Amino acid sequence: MNVAVIGLGLIGGSLLQALEAAGHAVTGYDADPATRELAEKDGRNVAGSVAEAAAGAEIVALAVPLPVLPGVIAELAGYDGLITDVTSVKGPVRALGIRRFVGGHPMAGKETSGYAAADPALFDGCAWVLCLEPGETDLDDWLTAAALFTALGARVVPATAAEHDRAVAEISHVPHLLAAALARRLVGNPLAAALGAGSFRDGTRVAGTRAELIAAMCGGNATATREVLTAVIDDLRQRLDELSAADPVEALIPALREAGDARRAWPPKPGAAAEEPAGAEELLALGRAGGWVTAVSESRVTVRTMRPESDRITP
Amino acid sequence: MNVAVIGLGLIGGSLLQALEAAGHAVTGYDADPATRELAEKDGRNVAGSVAEAAAGAEIVALAVPLPVLPGVIAELAGYDGLITDVTSVKGPVRALGIRRFVGGHPMAGKETSGYAAADPALFDGCAWVLCLEPGETDLDDWLTAAALFTALGARVVPATAAEHDRAVAEISHVPHLLAAALARRLVGNPLAAALGAGSFRDGTRVAGTRAELIAAMCGGNATATREVLTAVIDDLRQRLDELSAADPVEALIPALREAGDARRAWPPKPGAAAEEPAGAEELLALGRAGGWVTAVSESRVTVRTMRPESDRITP
Repeated sequence: MNVAVIGLGLIGGSLLQALEAAGHAVTGYDADPATRELAEKDGRNVAGSVAEAAAGAEIVALAVPLPVLPGVIAELAGYDGLITDVTSVKGPVRALGIRRFVGGHPMAGKETSGYAAADPALFDGCAWVLCLEPGETDLDDWLTAAALFTALGARVVPATAAEHDRAVAEISHVPHLLAAALARRLVGNPLAAALGAGSFRDGTRVAGTRAELIAAMCGGNATATREVLTAVIDDLRQRLDELSAADPVEALIPALREAGDARRAWPPKPGAAAEEPAGAEELLALGRAGGWVTAVSESRVTVRTMRPESDRITP
Repeated sequence: MNVAVIGLGLIGGSLLQALEAAGHAVTGYDADPATRELAEKDGRNVAGSVAEAAAGAEIVALAVPLPVLPGVIAELAGYDGLITDVTSVKGPVRALGIRRFVGGHPMAGKETSGYAAADPALFDGCAWVLCLEPGETDLDDWLTAAALFTALGARVVPATAAEHDRAVAEISHVPHLLAAALARRLVGNPLAAALGAGSFRDGTRVAGTRAELIAAMCGGNATATREVLTAVIDDLRQRLDELSAADPVEALIPALREAGDARRAWPPKPGAAAEEPAGAEELLALGRAGGWVTAVSESRVTVRTMRPESDRITP
């Protein structure tokens, strides 16, 4: 396929390299001349503008930060093909009302950033959420994007933008806020700092992330983060009640047991591969069950899927 | 010294072995005959009762679970020497009103338990809180215990029982409850489980600990755990307010920056060694500053100490 990648940082650069390695004709563009030069020296096709990169493309992948998206969309006025993106929050991008859009979020990253850190193997085995809005997303466009990214080794997870934003609040954004709340207990508290060990180290690790990055993630996904944080606070208040019970040890056990069971079952083990109908509702049900698409069939009538072992129906 | 160790699990067994290796005459006892046999076959002096173990001892170290402590104390009716313990909560032990008591808590552990897992090097470099209650603890007894445990390589941290219980709630008990709250978000939520990655893994690791152990820790330290959990909930509610601000990203940054600074400064680097007066108030001030005792001088007038680097007065 002819693919354009706009934004050649870690994700965009890796995507350009991975798609090229998979045999596609890829043109890249980055607003930063130094980054364009870096990619050119690396032997890549680099265009001089967004419009030039998109000319002749069948799919344009936007790998730019959320605040930059509207400007790039405006530059794509003359392009009428499929558009996807890689931003980590999907509701606000959906709200932009981009034509022929399939929102995406590859859950891949590294400690480093920029084109120099790009790696064509970055997406191998990573979860790549592709948004599917019933009555809004064109299923054929969705399958085109799914075929492209599964071929890079990604586990394509179908979800609505709202489902995605809620899930990442649960597994990433709220965990960052909890880690920060624990780390803040150290302020003016050298005795606690001297006694902290393994549980403190792990529970606070991500609090060391740059404040601007955590704030951008959580603030950019404010609605879902607020909902999940409210649920977590409510849960913690139940622990407070249990700590005030006549026998706090007994009172605490049921919730802690549920937590332990859930944690020990995570990460879920992949079950058996299957062939399933490529309908929008079936795909969303697959994602809700914790499954993903591993390949799109030639006929596009079915997808090859993988569901977690715990979801398998045992006779 | 003549030392008796009551309870020969991981901590008691390791203590018996470490004290013997340090040249002390140690007698052990465990209520479980199989454990006594194991220690005997290991070449240790093992008594047939608590009273027999304590006969002739200058210090008795109780390494038994909190619920068992009152019974063991009753068996020590004929013993009038110094008593210390290793239980992980100090307020409830102090409330038992044990005569000539210096409460202790070595912050050491392993994944395994029982005498078979004992290791004489377990306390090397570990923080060992020794409780010092102004007007209650005999300073000479405290220094005797401090001399014994610093010689095993432990960092002896002076603190009151209340300070200890509050600090461990901050660095261990509440972190376990937060990890459990995050892990509980997975219940009925396979999509989130499929997307969880590094921040979720680390933030929930200790939720996989046995529910009974977490409940015993938190429930056994209910007052301090409740206080700290209340403070953490209040802090998280401020994050909720910030998420509702006109610019949530900007609103979130100050608290996240404070958390990040605190986390990056942890663990504190040890500063320069010093010689300090061995007074009760001086020792408690040392502990509150995040420092610890590394040795007790012959004259017992001073202790050798270490304070964290950030606490050092620079000229």
